[in-house]
Amino acid sequence: MTLNIGVIGTGAIGREHIRRCSQVLQHARVVALNDINRNNCEQVISELGLQAEIYDNAHDLIAAPEVQAILVTSWGPTHEEFVLAAIKAGKAVFCEKPLAVTAQGCMNIVEAEIAAGKKMVQVGFMRPYDSGYRALKAVIDGGTLGEPLMLHCAHRNPAVGDAYTTDMAITDTLIHELDVLRWLLNDDYVSAQVIYPRKTRHASSHLKDPQIVLLETAKGIRIDVEIFVNCAYGYDIQCEVVGESGIARLPEPMSVQTRHAAQLSTGILTDWKKRFIAAYDVELQDFINNVLSGNMTGPSAWDGYAAAVAADACVAAQNNGDIVPITMPPRPAFYC
Amino acid sequence: MTLNIGVIGTGAIGREHIRRCSQVLQHARVVALNDINRNNCEQVISELGLQAEIYDNAHDLIAAPEVQAILVTSWGPTHEEFVLAAIKAGKAVFCEKPLAVTAQGCMNIVEAEIAAGKKMVQVGFMRPYDSGYRALKAVIDGGTLGEPLMLHCAHRNPAVGDAYTTDMAITDTLIHELDVLRWLLNDDYVSAQVIYPRKTRHASSHLKDPQIVLLETAKGIRIDVEIFVNCAYGYDIQCEVVGESGIARLPEPMSVQTRHAAQLSTGILTDWKKRFIAAYDVELQDFINNVLSGNMTGPSAWDGYAAAVAADACVAAQNNGDIVPITMPPRPAFYC
Amino acid sequence: MTLNIGVIGTGAIGREHIRRCSQVLQHARVVALNDINRNNCEQVISELGLQAEIYDNAHDLIAAPEVQAILVTSWGPTHEEFVLAAIKAGKAVFCEKPLAVTAQGCMNIVEAEIAAGKKMVQVGFMRPYDSGYRALKAVIDGGTLGEPLMLHCAHRNPAVGDAYTTDMAITDTLIHELDVLRWLLNDDYVSAQVIYPRKTRHASSHLKDPQIVLLETAKGIRIDVEIFVNCAYGYDIQCEVVGESGIARLPEPMSVQTRHAAQLSTGILTDWKKRFIAAYDVELQDFINNVLSGNMTGPSAWDGYAAAVAADACVAAQNNGDIVPITMPPRPAFYC
Amino acid sequence: MTLNIGVIGTGAIGREHIRRCSQVLQHARVVALNDINRNNCEQVISELGLQAEIYDNAHDLIAAPEVQAILVTSWGPTHEEFVLAAIKAGKAVFCEKPLAVTAQGCMNIVEAEIAAGKKMVQVGFMRPYDSGYRALKAVIDGGTLGEPLMLHCAHRNPAVGDAYTTDMAITDTLIHELDVLRWLLNDDYVSAQVIYPRKTRHASSHLKDPQIVLLETAKGIRIDVEIFVNCAYGYDIQCEVVGESGIARLPEPMSVQTRHAAQLSTGILTDWKKRFIAAYDVELQDFINNVLSGNMTGPSAWDGYAAAVAADACVAAQNNGDIVPITMPPRPAFYC
Repeated sequence: MTLNIGVIGTGAIGREHIRRCSQVLQHARVVALNDINRNNCEQVISELGLQAEIYDNAHDLIAAPEVQAILVTSWGPTHEEFVLAAIKAGKAVFCEKPLAVTAQGCMNIVEAEIAAGKKMVQVGFMRPYDSGYRALKAVIDGGTLGEPLMLHCAHRNPAVGDAYTTDMAITDTLIHELDVLRWLLNDDYVSAQVIYPRKTRHASSHLKDPQIVLLETAKGIRIDVEIFVNCAYGYDIQCEVVGESGIARLPEPMSVQTRHAAQLSTGILTDWKKRFIAAYDVELQDFINNVLSGNMTGPSAWDGYAAAVAADACVAAQNNGDIVPITMPPRPAFYC
Repeated sequence: MTLNIGVIGTGAIGREHIRRCSQVLQHARVVALNDINRNNCEQVISELGLQAEIYDNAHDLIAAPEVQAILVTSWGPTHEEFVLAAIKAGKAVFCEKPLAVTAQGCMNIVEAEIAAGKKMVQVGFMRPYDSGYRALKAVIDGGTLGEPLMLHCAHRNPAVGDAYTTDMAITDTLIHELDVLRWLLNDDYVSAQVIYPRKTRHASSHLKDPQIVLLETAKGIRIDVEIFVNCAYGYDIQCEVVGESGIARLPEPMSVQTRHAAQLSTGILTDWKKRFIAAYDVELQDFINNVLSGNMTGPSAWDGYAAAVAADACVAAQNNGDIVPITMPPRPAFYC
Repeated sequence: MTLNIGVIGTGAIGREHIRRCSQVLQHARVVALNDINRNNCEQVISELGLQAEIYDNAHDLIAAPEVQAILVTSWGPTHEEFVLAAIKAGKAVFCEKPLAVTAQGCMNIVEAEIAAGKKMVQVGFMRPYDSGYRALKAVIDGGTLGEPLMLHCAHRNPAVGDAYTTDMAITDTLIHELDVLRWLLNDDYVSAQVIYPRKTRHASSHLKDPQIVLLETAKGIRIDVEIFVNCAYGYDIQCEVVGESGIARLPEPMSVQTRHAAQLSTGILTDWKKRFIAAYDVELQDFINNVLSGNMTGPSAWDGYAAAVAADACVAAQNNGDIVPITMPPRPAFYC
Repeated sequence: MTLNIGVIGTGAIGREHIRRCSQVLQHARVVALNDINRNNCEQVISELGLQAEIYDNAHDLIAAPEVQAILVTSWGPTHEEFVLAAIKAGKAVFCEKPLAVTAQGCMNIVEAEIAAGKKMVQVGFMRPYDSGYRALKAVIDGGTLGEPLMLHCAHRNPAVGDAYTTDMAITDTLIHELDVLRWLLNDDYVSAQVIYPRKTRHASSHLKDPQIVLLETAKGIRIDVEIFVNCAYGYDIQCEVVGESGIARLPEPMSVQTRHAAQLSTGILTDWKKRFIAAYDVELQDFINNVLSGNMTGPSAWDGYAAAVAADACVAAQNNGDIVPITMPPRPAFYC
């Protein structure tokens, strides 16, 4: 069984997913491409030796009879339109972050999917597919440490460009924690607060860096996330779960230990692309397998909506300094 | 040169200090004892084989000509009175925490010491004497990591008795962080906020446990301290300093590493008395040496006052849920 | 491009490789099976939903026109015969350990392959495909630590059955180190010595456990390998390379760090199958890719021969207690 | 109670011990000094503000009525003579390594002490007083790991001067392991073998560096000690005990953990003097306390003899490449 996939958007991340489907994963074949620049499609076809049709219009690709599932990796503001079209066409769709650029856009997708009566959408949140987070979740769910009470997290990048703005700390960076921590704790957020520590000299003049986001969940768990995108020393993702009887910590990536120059050291990654590289493979294979088996279990449209609502509250908290409530309608039974 | 010491209060901590002066430290001799229960003094003298006079009245002990320096290890509410008397007698005094039970009481001592014109008071904050904190401070002051921006701290006890109340998380537990972090950062606090996470089932019904205290310093550094006094797994003190170019972390206590029963492990202490046991020796030797050399450099009356002011704000923040400002008069030149 | 594979031997490891080719790897298809028990073939076909022909005779499978490459996963003593037949048929062959049960048998394969004039054989040594060993080799080859001088290694299993004999410590256990350390150091062995420490009570009466093997290489590097197959605590592979300016150590497998019950711990695997599970995938994908590209780069027949010669010397050293020389003819240019 | 000590030899280590007795330890006073250079004595007296008599002849110092115990910190070849004289004078004596420059010299001291009928000698082996080794011994003796079967040890210095010769790897370096491992295991050595790995480019032309010493004990425990005195990266003492059910490892010295420049690191010492600095204090305090209590429990003349015998065998093994037996008379009941 092989899933025939059409890809909308052949930029960097689109190409990576096409490469995965063609060279790494099982049971998939990229048969159709669309991009606002047709040349990009031709280049990808040539580079990867694909047998794929180029469509000048994304909606034609979605409608094409040979296309069984859609990958949306185009510019963020176009996601909602294409995902809705895929749902309308009754085709499974994997959509990169963000599912939509507004919470309302995400809700439109949720409603369309519910109306269609079957799950078709997977959002490109890859951290729940990371073996480290999965091992951490297994420890939590194992129960030895009791109920989780607090999470201490950090999301650190060595540096960001001048185009990175203060709100992107939420919408581009924290968004991964907003997704994965809901999944890790099987819980929802109820409030957010943002604190600005002393600013690093390494940040551009317009950027508040670092930031600390304080989240509260429905179960009363308190989460602090340090976001520090010019931390200089490496790309470093930390997550420590404090339970009633003990603590569990996200594994450090595997590294050779050295004794050299009076230091006992292991390496820290500096390139974010290497940190979750295996998770991207697992994520997309899971989408392929789930479409083929007819049972969608990955990050859902509802998860995309929940992350968007939480992100909106965090951005508001960035701006007003208050403790901002996070409110969502009850989770529809469709997503339970 | 030997310093003749009189000790007021021969309870648990008093005896420990007497044992130190007699059996561990150099240049000191306990020559006088006072306790509300004379039997206690006799017992200590007998147990440790001391040659010491028993005074039924603490003020007589302070006045006794053979007594050159005073250790105040009596019940907290009596500290202020005895420290003020020692200052009046022109004798150096080491006072266990708290210096006084109110910030105003501490200020009274500060003013008396300034009026006397020489430093005579050392407060029993031992963490600045811990080799781990000293190594951490050396790394910070070395400058490689840039300016400190954030501190992530934890103060965890395995369990506390039923008599431990919610405010004691500040006055008995956090008080150590309030002292040592000022010293570590060479900075003062400007605000405090307290957050109550989901409560552990291991805490007594009247106790809020864990708590998270958020502090802001004059330099803008943001500190979060998790206080978790029924954490079950051990006595664990954590302090992570996030600087502009890197991070430094308080050393874990030295421990044998084992591979056993599918676990690669080092031990975590469970008894708080063992964690800073060496620091108590260094602290008291420093007091003795400083009195003999006439140059008091340990935690001062001003440090005691600053910790009291910060603790008051934290307790207020516990009660009102607000961000509570911490205000102090400027540091007197006498203490610079 | 898809490689049509015939598999000889459908026992545990054979099935695992068939599963890999069918469900995990790219560019391969199992089209033919042989086993001494035809039922085994039928069962595998049914379980994995294969479209594959069953051959009652392995030589027929090797000769079958639809079979482009052979996997030999039958009983060890049959390996030499089938590998030689595959070479004769001009078909690439992946052969599980051992390549042959004697060094002479391996040499027969080497000579046949050289006579055939092209590399067709890959031996199933998977450790050079392990990401940890690869990272270790990258550090060594990077040169920062200078020339390697010593290796301290350990190969520990929690327990072995009663059928495990003293010589199997070499032929079944050490054989992996004999292969991977040659590759890691790009060097050959020149002598072996075996030492028997005090015996563990956990070993069966006929088994000497633990053992220490001391190897010397042509470059003068000294290697000690502790083999301890009833170590009780876990499956633990250690490799420490001491260079002129520093030391590098094989990474520990990734694990959640916990603080619980007075222990700061990470987990140690107990099941050997999990330790190199990813390496088996990479190994077999490499074989497939290399066959398709016509450039065989994996562990060669010569590597199989070298491991067999070294193993023979180690077994001799087990028996006589001497330092046993390891001699091989010069590496043929064909394998350089 | 204060012990009046006379010190023979006021070189570097002598001065350190005098400083300890005067400024760090309890219950001791240095009252007499001897050195082949009287000026050295005067300088020490002046520097440390001592009230001490200078003796031009060591034997006069030993005989002086005010001297209750002797510290021998003179040139190695003089140790035997002064220790024997102290025994004859009935005075306790702490002698720095070596107790005597030959095993026979050590035996002369053993016999003199036995003849005198009471223990008076402590040899300056400090590692049994190191808190790390003590914690390691506590784990072994606790029994959780079963009987010890193997020890993997390393003794690494960053660099040595040109005067350091191949045999000094035994007599100056390994001598510490020869002592502490007997104590750790409560066992005796029965054979030694020395292996020379590939030489580091950092060693002087006349020095074989690194070396590996293989020891066997009476209980059958096998010990490998890597001696690498130009390891470049630090002063690093490793000791791993492999037991029947698990492994214990000597603690790494406490160190701040940093995240900086893509490395997660703790520091490694480079100065050997810092590694066991606390152990020297504990060692000498123990001597003082034991003399005062009349119960000598530290490293004995017999321990000095045992180390000398083992060192002789190791040096022979360095020269002949053989497995050299280590034979001693049975331990006299006097030392049990």
